[in-house]
Formats: sequence, C-alpha cells, structure tokens
Amino acid sequence: MDKGVTRISSRELSDKMGLTASQIRQDLNCFGGFGQQGYGYSVEGLYLKIGQILGLENSYKAILIGAGNLGKAVAVHMSFEKKGFSLVGIFDNDPAKIGSEIRDLKVCSMDELELFCSENHVDVAVFCVPKTATKHIAERLYKLGVKNYWNFSHYDLSLDYDDIIVENVHMNDSLMILCYRISNKEPEK
Amino acid sequence: MDKGVTRISSRELSDKMGLTASQIRQDLNCFGGFGQQGYGYSVEGLYLKIGQILGLENSYKAILIGAGNLGKAVAVHMSFEKKGFSLVGIFDNDPAKIGSEIRDLKVCSMDELELFCSENHVDVAVFCVPKTATKHIAERLYKLGVKNYWNFSHYDLSLDYDDIIVENVHMNDSLMILCYRISNKEPEK
Repeated sequence: MDKGVTRISSRELSDKMGLTASQIRQDLNCFGGFGQQGYGYSVEGLYLKIGQILGLENSYKAILIGAGNLGKAVAVHMSFEKKGFSLVGIFDNDPAKIGSEIRDLKVCSMDELELFCSENHVDVAVFCVPKTATKHIAERLYKLGVKNYWNFSHYDLSLDYDDIIVENVHMNDSLMILCYRISNKEPEK
Repeated sequence: MDKGVTRISSRELSDKMGLTASQIRQDLNCFGGFGQQGYGYSVEGLYLKIGQILGLENSYKAILIGAGNLGKAVAVHMSFEKKGFSLVGIFDNDPAKIGSEIRDLKVCSMDELELFCSENHVDVAVFCVPKTATKHIAERLYKLGVKNYWNFSHYDLSLDYDDIIVENVHMNDSLMILCYRISNKEPEK
C-alpha cells in the first residue's frame, strides 16, 4: 500500500512473505474469501480486513508497569495506537523515575495504581519489571480487574490464573534459541 | 536448584511448567534418557544437560547495532554470558551516543564496523535499529562474514539470504496477537 500497489496476487505475496501462494490463499480463506480468482487481492481491502480480524480498530487502555530502559523502550518504540491500544499510564516504584515524563505521560508511583485503576478503565498491563516483582503486581492488578497482560518479565503468569490473557515476550528464551541454532548450525527455514 | 531441590519427578516438573508429565518425559527422551524410572531427574544434571543441548557453554561474540532505548535495554537487561554469548561491541551512528558507555563498552561509530570486524571475530549481530536501516547494515555484516542475527527490527532478514541464522523478536507482532486474543476473548491455553 505504501508503494502505491492496489492489487496483489497470492503469488506476489508469497515472494514477499516467504510462504507458498497456496498457504496464503488457504490462510485467508479461513476468514472468508478476500480475493477474486485471477484478479488477486485488493491491497487496501486486505489491509483493512486483516486489521479488523486482529481487532486493531480497538483502543484498549494499557498501562505500563516499570519505567526502566526496557519499559522506556517499549513506551517510546511501540506504536500502540496502530496496534489496537492506547497507553494511558506508566508506573514505577523508583523515586528517581516518578514524575519524569515519557511520551507525554508522567511516571506515577506504584502507590497510585489502585486509585488510577478505580478512576480509569484499564484493559491491559504491560510488565517491564523484574521477575521477582511480577507475581505480586499481577495479584494487585487481577484484584483490580485487569486481566490482560503483555509480559516482558520472566515470570510465567499463566501458572497462577486461568482466566487471563497473557502474551509473553521472552527475550531470554529467544536468545537461547539463537544459541541452540548457532550451535547446531540450523539456518532459517 | 536455587531452592536446594536435588531430585525432581516429571510430575513435579509438570506442575511447575504447565505441561503434562508425559510430554516432559517424551521431550527429554528425544535427547536421550535423563531420568531413572521411579527416581526422577537429578536437578543439577538436567540443568547442565539442557544447557549443553542449548550450547550455553559457548561464548559467541556478539555486537549490538543501535544504542537507543531498545538497544540499551537489551544490553543492560540481557545476561548474554549465561546464554552462550558475550557482548563485545556496540555501534550507533548518532554522534550524541558515540563515545558514551553502556555496560563497560564504549559505543562506537558505525564507520568503525568494518575495522572492528576485521580485528575481532564476530559471530552474531543484534539489530536494534529501525526497519529502514536494517537491510543495508545486514549487507555490510554479511560481507564481513557475520551471518547470525538476533533481530529486533521489523525487517525480515530471512528474505534476502538463505544461509543465515535469524532469531526474531517481533514486538509489533506480539502486540497485535494480544489485540487479537483480547478482541476474541481467547485465554491462555
């Protein structure tokens, strides 16, 4: 779409994506047919429909827990708004960080978490805190009704609750997978 | 091991890991039997052997490309040494960052990349740069013989080369998966 392409075939998509054309057609067919045989897909139509399937038109309210390097990187780099979220609060327990500004948001004290969640509907918490802190903070958030988590910590939240939605970004695991693949010389499939 | 446990059964492991005991036994059996029926696994033995399988005793030399918030977070938070790597260089093209110190390493100019790689054997490059910069930098590194990448950028390196090893950390994808799961109320399996 950025390049002004308006129609694209599954074959052209397959070159760009490293999948077979048939895989792409099958996957898209799971959500209803988006293309016309012989005419390919409307690029804008595909963009909008995939966005709808993902739910990107939502604006789930997210708070960030932890304003260290990682939290700051997540707050600054991620375009939450384009991904179905809006970042509405940032919390930390470090006095040196509380009151500083990241992305037009003032970093709040962890002590203000309960008040904030009672005054604002919060859908999602983003965990950028050390493993040891995660369990306790998740307990507080769960009690406040926040049950969706984007989890960068190394604590496995899904072990404690079965009615939550957790999406993990486990960078340690990723690094060990890389180590395994280098050690076993296993190139990208 | 941290808790002083010396032996553990697949059942006890399954409670901690959210997998069935039989899955755990089957997975470990793929690498040879580590346990004794009725006696469980030696915790230290398992720790060492899994580390060996992953190749964590290696010390692959890694350089970090990009010393922004994300790069800094990766450099500071990741215990490369425990994961089979050692971080030996950090590069950026921002004059404000060049010369600053992160984790006892001075941030070098991107101009020094060729010289550094000729003087030091580099196994892995960690990409913490914007999508637009990745392709060009990968070309330079590939020419220098660096063919393993830990990729935080949103550029799909595997499309350009088929003899490289890439491990992606695609945080945008992860956030969209979370959006999809919240929109479709799909809890953790």
